Amino acid sequence: MNKLYYSPGACSVGIHVLLEEIGKPYEAVLTNLREGAQFKPEFIALNPKSKVPTLQRDDGSALTEFPAIAYWLATTNPDKKLLPADTEAQARALEAMDYVVSTMHMQGFSRMFRPSNFAPSEADHEAVKARGKEIFEKGLAVMEKAMAGKDYVAGSFSVADAALFYVEFWWADRLGQKLPANLAAHYARMKARPAVAAVLKKEGLAA
Amino acid sequence: MNKLYYSPGACSVGIHVLLEEIGKPYEAVLTNLREGAQFKPEFIALNPKSKVPTLQRDDGSALTEFPAIAYWLATTNPDKKLLPADTEAQARALEAMDYVVSTMHMQGFSRMFRPSNFAPSEADHEAVKARGKEIFEKGLAVMEKAMAGKDYVAGSFSVADAALFYVEFWWADRLGQKLPANLAAHYARMKARPAVAAVLKKEGLAA
Ligand SMILES: N[C@@H](CCC(=O)N[C@@H](CS)C(=O)NCC(=O)O)C(=O)O
Ligand SMILES: N[C@@H](CCC(=O)N[C@@H](CS)C(=O)NCC(=O)O)C(=O)O
Repeated sequence: MNKLYYSPGACSVGIHVLLEEIGKPYEAVLTNLREGAQFKPEFIALNPKSKVPTLQRDDGSALTEFPAIAYWLATTNPDKKLLPADTEAQARALEAMDYVVSTMHMQGFSRMFRPSNFAPSEADHEAVKARGKEIFEKGLAVMEKAMAGKDYVAGSFSVADAALFYVEFWWADRLGQKLPANLAAHYARMKARPAVAAVLKKEGLAA
Repeated sequence: MNKLYYSPGACSVGIHVLLEEIGKPYEAVLTNLREGAQFKPEFIALNPKSKVPTLQRDDGSALTEFPAIAYWLATTNPDKKLLPADTEAQARALEAMDYVVSTMHMQGFSRMFRPSNFAPSEADHEAVKARGKEIFEKGLAVMEKAMAGKDYVAGSFSVADAALFYVEFWWADRLGQKLPANLAAHYARMKARPAVAAVLKKEGLAA
């Protein structure tokens, strides 16, 4: 049984959604980042990078990095069609997922959530947060355009939607900001999926 | 014919290597980041993210994000076996590639190369560079362990090696730092590949 190490509302929520969409039994293991669970020896032994999401598979081995975990879940559950069938759509799904994780999240949100990891001087923290917001809003504009006329990033639901979902959640629910029209519609569409609603409830994030 | 927009010695060098390994005609279009070519209107029209690597395909459309471009090149050139055949090795290749790009490069090297993008106060720049070095060195340790007993990240040459290669190049050649043993051997193995040697020459980086 796959074991997902997650922290409530962290980026791991996207992988949690994929596991719930797949619908096979899995275990969600609470790894509270605020309490520093990622730096405990047991967790470091599993993932020396000290990050969630971390997925432990049946053989005990850990897989890390959101896009790699999402790809592996899609590939090992081909009947769920979590990756589009054609090459071009696959590349576009990976492109969106990589951009969401490496830029919108890790360059944008990370500056807003933890400015001290970017600038040591407290006097700079407002400027760091503003730079993070700027990077994130550029990302919103890129994704808003990419979503024009589409229900899901790759047409039908795929791994890319699970990634886009978690940054939409952070922007709309954690920061109370407005999403542009296409992304607001995508976010509402995602929240209407039973798997997404179930995960929000399980992580204690349901409204 | 695929057109790669690259800047000499930037992360685009990894995609340049893949194009050369594939061995089909391609065009390499100089986009000098130091001169701000990524912010020119023509480039923004192609890639509003203003980043290299950007790959323009036969139909004129642009594909962005290193891992997505690498995946697309591998999938559209299956005879080159740039992605391992089995699911587990594929996931491991993507895991390494994502970690190299999103963490070792974008969180590690970016702090060392452009600290002003992290902390506005010049007084903090040495601390930002030190934090970047710390993140990068943790990455070296993770990859050194992953490479134990292997010639290439996924056993045989794959897209992941092209990513690992460019951060090895930055560390060893641009910063003159020492690579740990397995990575030093991997870097030497990469430089001995005719495609890599050809690209270093084309980008004006050959010793
Ligand atoms: N590149 C990683 C990023 C994962 C990441 O940044 N996770 C955050 C939570 S959203 C984390 O675990 N942070 C804990 C820490 O940095 O101490 C991935 O794609 O999985
Ligand atoms: N997430 C992007 C990152 C690409 C990136 O950071 N490229 C750098 C060069 S190594 C760049 O174009 N920088 C120009 C700039 O930021 O102005 C990818 O995977 O392709």
